[in-house]
Amino acid sequence: MSIVVVGFLAYDTVETAAGTAEEVMGGGGSYFSVSARFFSPVSIVAVVGMDYRQSDLTFFSERGIDIRGIATREGKTTRWHGRYHEDLNKRDTIKLSLNVLENFTPELLPDQRRADYAYLAPNDPDLQEHVLDQLQSPKLVAADLYDYWIENTRPGLARVLPRIQILLCSDGEARLLTGEHNLVKAGRAILKMGPETVLIKRGEYGVLQFSKEGMFAVPAYPLEEVVDPTGAGDTFAGGFMGFLARNGRMSESILRTAVVYGSVMGSFVVEDFSLQRLEKLTWEEVEKRYRAFVELTDSHHARWTSQ
Amino acid sequence: MSIVVVGFLAYDTVETAAGTAEEVMGGGGSYFSVSARFFSPVSIVAVVGMDYRQSDLTFFSERGIDIRGIATREGKTTRWHGRYHEDLNKRDTIKLSLNVLENFTPELLPDQRRADYAYLAPNDPDLQEHVLDQLQSPKLVAADLYDYWIENTRPGLARVLPRIQILLCSDGEARLLTGEHNLVKAGRAILKMGPETVLIKRGEYGVLQFSKEGMFAVPAYPLEEVVDPTGAGDTFAGGFMGFLARNGRMSESILRTAVVYGSVMGSFVVEDFSLQRLEKLTWEEVEKRYRAFVELTDSHHARWTSQ
Repeated sequence: MSIVVVGFLAYDTVETAAGTAEEVMGGGGSYFSVSARFFSPVSIVAVVGMDYRQSDLTFFSERGIDIRGIATREGKTTRWHGRYHEDLNKRDTIKLSLNVLENFTPELLPDQRRADYAYLAPNDPDLQEHVLDQLQSPKLVAADLYDYWIENTRPGLARVLPRIQILLCSDGEARLLTGEHNLVKAGRAILKMGPETVLIKRGEYGVLQFSKEGMFAVPAYPLEEVVDPTGAGDTFAGGFMGFLARNGRMSESILRTAVVYGSVMGSFVVEDFSLQRLEKLTWEEVEKRYRAFVELTDSHHARWTSQ
Repeated sequence: MSIVVVGFLAYDTVETAAGTAEEVMGGGGSYFSVSARFFSPVSIVAVVGMDYRQSDLTFFSERGIDIRGIATREGKTTRWHGRYHEDLNKRDTIKLSLNVLENFTPELLPDQRRADYAYLAPNDPDLQEHVLDQLQSPKLVAADLYDYWIENTRPGLARVLPRIQILLCSDGEARLLTGEHNLVKAGRAILKMGPETVLIKRGEYGVLQFSKEGMFAVPAYPLEEVVDPTGAGDTFAGGFMGFLARNGRMSESILRTAVVYGSVMGSFVVEDFSLQRLEKLTWEEVEKRYRAFVELTDSHHARWTSQ
């Protein structure tokens, strides 16, 4: 089934220990849609400026990603410039220029409004609500959080959370949202705010999932070389939602497998700058790392042996 | 089969957000042996001062832990005073008084020298080597590291590492030992130094295991309340070694299951100060949390369903 994703498209300049990438494709909408497209049809809702490269639109459409919902407006595309520490869990934003994103209100196309699956990238809760109002009868809506909007728009957030099925957030955001330092308490507190499932993303430490069925914990796939962590969370979300949409139904097993496929996709994207690793990625590589991931986390359950 | 453990016995004063515990049983040897005893016979090699409480020796012997190797010397038992931050991954040592531990050289009893399983808690590599020299034909020796001895006694360490089968260390120690920030590279580099298996302990983020068979990653069991993290690593090591000794043979499955049982034991000890949680712990609780742990980490492997 098809997923509609409401997210940013941006040009990023990223500095890591491995080097610098300038004016490369970025923004959560880019990472999410390219990742999700390995599993399911995807349709983007976003805005770009007059300077957005035709070749980058072609990059999406060549992959079968529906770009009819990308609006082009007077002005410049969103720019983000970030610098990572040697500890790749830490980064500084050197500069963020929203540009055309200021005053943009996402409007869905008629067929996008009928989507069964929707992903709302981090945004102002008022805008997330505006998208929810347009969706006619979604089977599943997932949304991501962002520090800024937790601190500044709590009433809006309180209205959005009961209307979504899955919330994705970082460990820091879960703590900020609930005031609970302990992640188990934080996860359970978020469930009381509305979503049926909460995924707490812990970067290189993996993902914690909370639902009525209980907890699920996966480590991140340990990599020998991480070039650029940008987009790992959105790429995770893309693989996760893509797998759910491909299955078309929900169960604890499907949810857990979706978390593993999301983790697999996230493990690839950080191996190179921007979307470069996903661009070359084959389905065979995805399946191979999925099997490696299952083997990595399989505790084998050896029992007592006779002594 | 029986395990001989060479480790410290101490009295700890511990301050955490949950309160303060004064002059309570501590030291890696205490945590390790009480944890391992749930699985296998354990024999301690350690030194205490004249002030060590008879009731604490009784605590060990009532659990069937062999205390004949605990030497009592003139002077005071080792004291450690630590204070944890709200982020329980961080702690400060307020005071460490080695006392009788200074100038102590561990000497094994004749039957301890014939042990099949040995665990060397963090110590000066020269002393670890002295213990290795006394072991007649061990099937499996595991050792733990400590920052201080990595920095100050590298030649001794280089002699110890090829003589042990399993190395346990923290992520920081793995980095310090190898000069590699990336843990996959660090884990593989340590394998080249001698041990067949390396377990990198990451506290609340779980354990990474490296061996010729590949990698195994487990998260820590997510707890709603952590009272005192002291001894979690030694308690993990106790459950891990206890399971291995109980099985009496090695395979990748047994190794992985041992890591899970170690994680289970570690998850209990932090629920209260000192050994208080282990004191009350029943085997039924261990098995129940083992099953919960397997369920927590089981990715279920849902496959495509028809759409």
